[in-house]
Amino acid sequence: MTEVKAILFDVFGSVVDWRSSLIAELSAFGTMRGIPADWTGLVDRWRQAYAPSMDRVRRGELPWTVLDELHRASLDRIIAEMGIDGLNGADRDHLTTAWHRLKPWPDSIAGLTRLKARFIIGPLSNGNIALLVNMAKNAGIPWDVVFGSETFRHFKPDPEVYLGAAAQLRLAPGEVMMAAAHNHDLAAAQALGLRTAFFARPTEYGPLQSRDFAATGAWDVVATDITDLAAQMGC
Amino acid sequence: MTEVKAILFDVFGSVVDWRSSLIAELSAFGTMRGIPADWTGLVDRWRQAYAPSMDRVRRGELPWTVLDELHRASLDRIIAEMGIDGLNGADRDHLTTAWHRLKPWPDSIAGLTRLKARFIIGPLSNGNIALLVNMAKNAGIPWDVVFGSETFRHFKPDPEVYLGAAAQLRLAPGEVMMAAAHNHDLAAAQALGLRTAFFARPTEYGPLQSRDFAATGAWDVVATDITDLAAQMGC
Repeated sequence: MTEVKAILFDVFGSVVDWRSSLIAELSAFGTMRGIPADWTGLVDRWRQAYAPSMDRVRRGELPWTVLDELHRASLDRIIAEMGIDGLNGADRDHLTTAWHRLKPWPDSIAGLTRLKARFIIGPLSNGNIALLVNMAKNAGIPWDVVFGSETFRHFKPDPEVYLGAAAQLRLAPGEVMMAAAHNHDLAAAQALGLRTAFFARPTEYGPLQSRDFAATGAWDVVATDITDLAAQMGC
Repeated sequence: MTEVKAILFDVFGSVVDWRSSLIAELSAFGTMRGIPADWTGLVDRWRQAYAPSMDRVRRGELPWTVLDELHRASLDRIIAEMGIDGLNGADRDHLTTAWHRLKPWPDSIAGLTRLKARFIIGPLSNGNIALLVNMAKNAGIPWDVVFGSETFRHFKPDPEVYLGAAAQLRLAPGEVMMAAAHNHDLAAAQALGLRTAFFARPTEYGPLQSRDFAATGAWDVVATDITDLAAQMGC
């Protein structure tokens, strides 16, 4: 492991707590605007639309589309399905950028700050660049570089994302570690020669969580959280 | 100017002092290895090769090539022309990465740190991503995002670079400010609708400096250095 030079992180669920953040922001918005709705249900449906929407791009059914646009289209559909009234275009744009304001898990900033002292750290996320940059500004995430799906015009788990990040850093795949709370992300990275680190986020999906309670692969590091990852990496 | 959300910086000469940094590193390397050479002359020739090498890519005479590779090819040619002996491939790779270790001008880190509190800051450089990320790690430059020519597979002053950065940030061109010590860079940015900030670096080229001693265009801000830019931007 001494050859690892860069540690790249999955973001949604791994670094930030999308579900609690979105439920809090959307519920507050609904209260402020007097729009009653099952905001928690909306958030869960929104996240369920995430992978299928990217898969349409990955299969070539949609041209390249950044995640902000996929999120907005999914939101429009879900609002219609749930029969929520009173949200105009500006409201929907605003709610879509709630993904830019997600809050980190309690250990994330401390752990990343420690890792940054010895490693290049960055996101390797399906988010687009504006989303990831705005999130980092809002939350104080100290990235050295910001890699998103938009950088490579591919969504994970396409190989272009993992290998593209290593290539832009002019590192061999084995000099790059993928860190995530999702076993399938690490499996894709490991198959391409990247190092891997897992830490569980067992409350990511709330009561809907069905997997990723523990490591299911032979990952290089299994940590309890990002602070523990920093400790295990000697930081 | 209240609409500016991001300030993007030219790097070589504007944020870092490439000439003094390279002369110091290459001279020290030559002394350590007992290789006598006109290292200052080599550095000046190397920089003179920079724009012509990128122009070959811009005209389509070369396929897309990252700056590290252009630097390495220019170095090989200059070493041969100057008749310098004793530099093997690993030495040349090492000297090429001296561009990753350039030192900031004295005001750069303080000014950028102040600007970062209110604006998204990043490089918009012809450097490649590894070069810019390693430079920032070495020098402590607190970028929020790293944009290089590699991001867009175009070199400045191609429009794809300036407009590509605004698009990735999901900002209008007028919400992005280009900051540089080079009037021609600002002219290209301004023609595309970006805001512009100039500060002179009159010693950038040492005795060879022939231009950019002062602003020659109607730039939005003319500052004495990056700290003064921060003050003028209200930071």
